[in-house]
Amino acid sequence: MPPFGFLHMRAWASLFGQLLRSPRAVCIREVHFHSQFAEAVLTSHLKPQQEKTNFIIKTPKGTRDLSPQQMVVREKILDMVVGCFKRHGAKRLDTPAFELKEMLTEKYGEDSGLIYDLKDQGGELLSLRYDLTVPFARYLAMNKVKKMKRYHVGKVWRRESPTIVQGRYREFCQCDFDIAGQFDPMIPDAECLKIMCEILSGLQLGDFIIKVNDRRILDGMFAVCGVPESKFHAICSSIDKLDKISWKDVRHEMVAKKGLAPEVADRIGDYVQCHGGISLIEQMFQDPRLSQNKQALDGLGDLKLLFEYLTLFGIAEKISFDLSLARGLDYYTGVIYEAVLLQTPAQTQESFNVGSVAAGGRYDKLVGMFDPKGHKVPCVGLSIGVERIFSIVEQRMKTFGQKIRTTETQVFVATPQKNFLHERLKLIAELWDAGIKAELLYKNNPKLLTQLHYCEDMGIPLVVIIGEQEMKEGIIKLRSVASREEVAIKRENLVAEIQKRLSES
Amino acid sequence: MPPFGFLHMRAWASLFGQLLRSPRAVCIREVHFHSQFAEAVLTSHLKPQQEKTNFIIKTPKGTRDLSPQQMVVREKILDMVVGCFKRHGAKRLDTPAFELKEMLTEKYGEDSGLIYDLKDQGGELLSLRYDLTVPFARYLAMNKVKKMKRYHVGKVWRRESPTIVQGRYREFCQCDFDIAGQFDPMIPDAECLKIMCEILSGLQLGDFIIKVNDRRILDGMFAVCGVPESKFHAICSSIDKLDKISWKDVRHEMVAKKGLAPEVADRIGDYVQCHGGISLIEQMFQDPRLSQNKQALDGLGDLKLLFEYLTLFGIAEKISFDLSLARGLDYYTGVIYEAVLLQTPAQTQESFNVGSVAAGGRYDKLVGMFDPKGHKVPCVGLSIGVERIFSIVEQRMKTFGQKIRTTETQVFVATPQKNFLHERLKLIAELWDAGIKAELLYKNNPKLLTQLHYCEDMGIPLVVIIGEQEMKEGIIKLRSVASREEVAIKRENLVAEIQKRLSES
Repeated sequence: MPPFGFLHMRAWASLFGQLLRSPRAVCIREVHFHSQFAEAVLTSHLKPQQEKTNFIIKTPKGTRDLSPQQMVVREKILDMVVGCFKRHGAKRLDTPAFELKEMLTEKYGEDSGLIYDLKDQGGELLSLRYDLTVPFARYLAMNKVKKMKRYHVGKVWRRESPTIVQGRYREFCQCDFDIAGQFDPMIPDAECLKIMCEILSGLQLGDFIIKVNDRRILDGMFAVCGVPESKFHAICSSIDKLDKISWKDVRHEMVAKKGLAPEVADRIGDYVQCHGGISLIEQMFQDPRLSQNKQALDGLGDLKLLFEYLTLFGIAEKISFDLSLARGLDYYTGVIYEAVLLQTPAQTQESFNVGSVAAGGRYDKLVGMFDPKGHKVPCVGLSIGVERIFSIVEQRMKTFGQKIRTTETQVFVATPQKNFLHERLKLIAELWDAGIKAELLYKNNPKLLTQLHYCEDMGIPLVVIIGEQEMKEGIIKLRSVASREEVAIKRENLVAEIQKRLSES
Repeated sequence: MPPFGFLHMRAWASLFGQLLRSPRAVCIREVHFHSQFAEAVLTSHLKPQQEKTNFIIKTPKGTRDLSPQQMVVREKILDMVVGCFKRHGAKRLDTPAFELKEMLTEKYGEDSGLIYDLKDQGGELLSLRYDLTVPFARYLAMNKVKKMKRYHVGKVWRRESPTIVQGRYREFCQCDFDIAGQFDPMIPDAECLKIMCEILSGLQLGDFIIKVNDRRILDGMFAVCGVPESKFHAICSSIDKLDKISWKDVRHEMVAKKGLAPEVADRIGDYVQCHGGISLIEQMFQDPRLSQNKQALDGLGDLKLLFEYLTLFGIAEKISFDLSLARGLDYYTGVIYEAVLLQTPAQTQESFNVGSVAAGGRYDKLVGMFDPKGHKVPCVGLSIGVERIFSIVEQRMKTFGQKIRTTETQVFVATPQKNFLHERLKLIAELWDAGIKAELLYKNNPKLLTQLHYCEDMGIPLVVIIGEQEMKEGIIKLRSVASREEVAIKRENLVAEIQKRLSES
């Protein structure tokens, strides 16, 4: 995809152009550069009359504050992701942070224990949402919506053991895109994969591959290998761990913990080592055992059609049919996929393993679980692992020592003399009212040097200077922080001149 | 403020220009126009093998989904609010949805009972945040930040009795701007009031007034009226209700429920009826009782200085010194303020009472409550009541029958013939890769009329049509949905031509 890559390289460069400080604006003060997990033992001052209590001031386990630097990176990345969702015609939806507890039960398989419940304070039993997919399905069923292409950006909460180094937290942001409705097969599914490619190419995170499989192929594979149907979900959960632990450990879990016969496990082992392109699909059609299974054949047929569309979209070479891909969640019914970044040797020095950065699949029965009459609304969608992407970009910026402007202030209002607060306040109000981003120091009589240093520190490009001489002459001095050049401007032309300069820069 | 008002009238017109559909694109289909509180009794299909359970499919009490229409209005309003915060040099911060429970205790006075607690699932005791101010103070103390101008847009949760008609929910969005740090008096405070004026004028919600008072004046007033110091907070909470219930009811609460002597209550009653401008401040300086109280004099002195700065900012006429303003929250220590919309007779037909739409004040001791050594960081800030603003704008759009585009799709890819899916897929991938917002129907062989109707329904301005004839001639037809004009374009010029048309429109 050379033209596509080129376009997005420019977009990315412009993103970083906005993120990075002008190289001429030096003397950067490093404020708020702290560990998010710094803890300080604190003597409470809340009850001065009672005995003092010791408590630790921190954010809850597995959560963190996001500093202004982090928020700038996040906003730029989210803008790109949301821009792609809008390019594909999605509407935005929002749902509450918590749901009735019963809405979330039996949707997440072995992960259900990770759901945060709210305390029973009289009233309904509530849980924090675990993903954005189940609330979407609940929304569709509740409002009897049969067709919808929506995106949702929001926080979700999971009580996982936080492994902070990998960018995993108990509170994290998800960016989901889903297509609900009965359509001709594989067209929306192919669009979901196209979206994943556009976003991952656009963010220039390095080379990636999207693994694709189908739940029906997995189920068919389990059946022909001799897994009892009651164990399908449990074995699927084990297979899902193959990207984190070895086949040997997965096999041990299936045999020792989940009671699978060793020879059945070995038959599965033969299949899950297979991955490839369209030719592997053809090969599996010929597989003596798999070709006897109706479900597997349905899945293989759909995958073949999917690859046809992916070829038309020009992304087939990014996709790998991978029989080891399982996806842990219970609700998937058809195609499933997961994008992973490929670590090239040059990048291993970053020693920063991030694994899956986007994933999704088809879930045709989830909406029906909420509908009074069990009416189904077929759905397919994807979730971008933005937290991991944030981590990678932050890590990279740290590696390259890149600094970020955390404010957008365009003009600073300064004075070299005492007793000019009133003039500064009148002047800055004029700028604000004209839509110009402006700041001043909250001091009656600040030193000029302090004011100019502030501009350099914060990367503010322009300074308006007003003093006795300027007042007398009815002018204002306009100073460029980078070049240190000053020009005199008639007071009444100030706003127009600033707007002209800003539009040129 | 004529120039200011003018500018923002244009901004608002442009906001609505974006929100509104082109009048020529008719036939609007009303999808997802449903009650957010629709409930359906549902037979659970979760446990098909067990007996079926009845449950109700709904969002938790006091919460709601936000439809694409609502999200569009929200995003436009939030963009304006955040734009103003950035214009004043604020950085963005984010904090977790929940805090350690002990971080929130003794901050909210009588409202503490409204905090949502999380269930004890082993580990820390957690609560959902109740506002964005206490997490900000916790952040400053935890990271030893002494100076920061930040904004925060996020959800907060309160277990209030939901009165949905007024736009009050248990989950709602807050937009906060705060200035932390030791500065010369009243300069940041005046900027906070300026920001409130800019936002409320900019959103053109009608005339408004900002009531201003000072906690020290209130405390001084209580002292000179004879309120025992132990009852200051409780009486303050009662006074805070004056905008919702009558003086008679407030007096009854103070006397009957809070044990205040009737004559003390009556003395308070004399004061809380006073409101006015700078002249009222002068009058209170002369008040025989109040002028004997050190705290009250400090408060009055600061208010006088504040009005001086507000005059320089050109907003003094929007501000009313109001001795009945109390603000319920415990943590305020100085200036407090609250903006209310003024209902003009012409508007009363809307019969839509919204009350306070923005509020804030000075809280100089909150950070010290978190700091191990009690080090204080003086703060002043404001919160925009965006939920009420959303309600007003939604109500208004409903009244005027205004429709909103919920997608941004620019081009639709259509075909008049069968078996053109492959060509449509290749074509749309080309558009997406060029950054053009494009859609097609997920059908192998859709009817042309269905495709054109979809464009009219969704307000999509351009249609690209490809069929046998076009293929043969190496062209594409480009159709304007509004004018129904079609032109033939060479296939290789399509992207450039679309980009040209879109940049012109």
